[in-house]
Amino acid sequence: MSQLKVRVVSRSTLKRLPLYLHLLESLADQGLQNVSCTQIAEKFDFDPTQVRKDLEATGEVGTARIGFRTVSLIVKIKEFLGWNNAHDAFLVGAGNMGKALLGYKDFDRYGLNIVAAFDKDTRKVGSRIFNREVLPLVKLPNLAKRMHINIGIVTVPAEYAQEVVDLMVVAGIKAIWNFAPAPLKIPEGVILENARLTQSLAVLTNNLTKVLGDDGKDLEKN
Amino acid sequence: MSQLKVRVVSRSTLKRLPLYLHLLESLADQGLQNVSCTQIAEKFDFDPTQVRKDLEATGEVGTARIGFRTVSLIVKIKEFLGWNNAHDAFLVGAGNMGKALLGYKDFDRYGLNIVAAFDKDTRKVGSRIFNREVLPLVKLPNLAKRMHINIGIVTVPAEYAQEVVDLMVVAGIKAIWNFAPAPLKIPEGVILENARLTQSLAVLTNNLTKVLGDDGKDLEKN
Repeated sequence: MSQLKVRVVSRSTLKRLPLYLHLLESLADQGLQNVSCTQIAEKFDFDPTQVRKDLEATGEVGTARIGFRTVSLIVKIKEFLGWNNAHDAFLVGAGNMGKALLGYKDFDRYGLNIVAAFDKDTRKVGSRIFNREVLPLVKLPNLAKRMHINIGIVTVPAEYAQEVVDLMVVAGIKAIWNFAPAPLKIPEGVILENARLTQSLAVLTNNLTKVLGDDGKDLEKN
Repeated sequence: MSQLKVRVVSRSTLKRLPLYLHLLESLADQGLQNVSCTQIAEKFDFDPTQVRKDLEATGEVGTARIGFRTVSLIVKIKEFLGWNNAHDAFLVGAGNMGKALLGYKDFDRYGLNIVAAFDKDTRKVGSRIFNREVLPLVKLPNLAKRMHINIGIVTVPAEYAQEVVDLMVVAGIKAIWNFAPAPLKIPEGVILENARLTQSLAVLTNNLTKVLGDDGKDLEKN
């Protein structure tokens, strides 16, 4: 593990790295051995200097005029994002969003392995969703400790989110990926990342309202 | 429509407003008639001055010592976010993420009404998902124009995202909510909002790697 040095980078860099990774994987599939910052920058309309800085944060070093070795850069980005090792995760809330995440095949490429789902609704308990059994929520703490689960995914309605998170924290879960549109309190040392779906929707519809407001077309429709 | 004045605010303000809205709705359900910036700020660990600035962006004005009228503030935030009118949307990509969004009941509270789903996979076409028929992708342009659809939701794999977006743009769709982890190019005047699920996951797993890297526990497991 000594070669794994995780540098601290900005959240914006972290959010651009997966974009580069997807692109690089498709370039590698096409047989491209080397890739330059300029090539990557063009695809995203980013500044090449920005791309270089982002990529160098992973520890990979490019060569003048040749650029980066595609495959090697893919490995470095994955290591950097923590996507080279699979992290086992528990998901709580077997509703529609929970089902979608359980069925999302690409997560294994991102080092996320959802090993079990939990729900407190007894009608859901015992059913199977994409090959994972839905377990009763009360079983989470013991199982999480026994299986050394580090990631908890919250896909319950907003009003239940805090109690689920509290349970996860007690169970020793260190990182929480929250899909509920609720303010959550977590103790220091626990990582909380909000998927922010409704916030993303808010940006979209607010912008759309501004555009439509100008000609008023859609507003009159309703 | 003349009373609808949309001010330009920062993306961060836009992303906090849905959080306030969820809180206010639950406070209104509990019968709370007035609410102060301080009360809201405490729930989220935000700065009260920030909360006041965010809320005033919606055009609602509070009263000294009393605060805001809860119900009236809810209405103003919804108007501001464009969630007071339902926007009809088309979704393309009837895979797991598409199904999850089709089944997500809360969208109608956020002014989003997914009226139809499309897929180019002929095995999916004709099936029904949460009461919407899956239509062949080729039908999208005509239907979008005829029904004056403004929002397109993209839940196809990354490699098909650009062609779907191009089709939506031709069809007159003005705002695109993208769930595919792909760089997308859109013409000026069209709104693109990325849901950024994998980017959110990247922040989570990178932070977790940093935490775990210190004691190395989980890294050795794999």
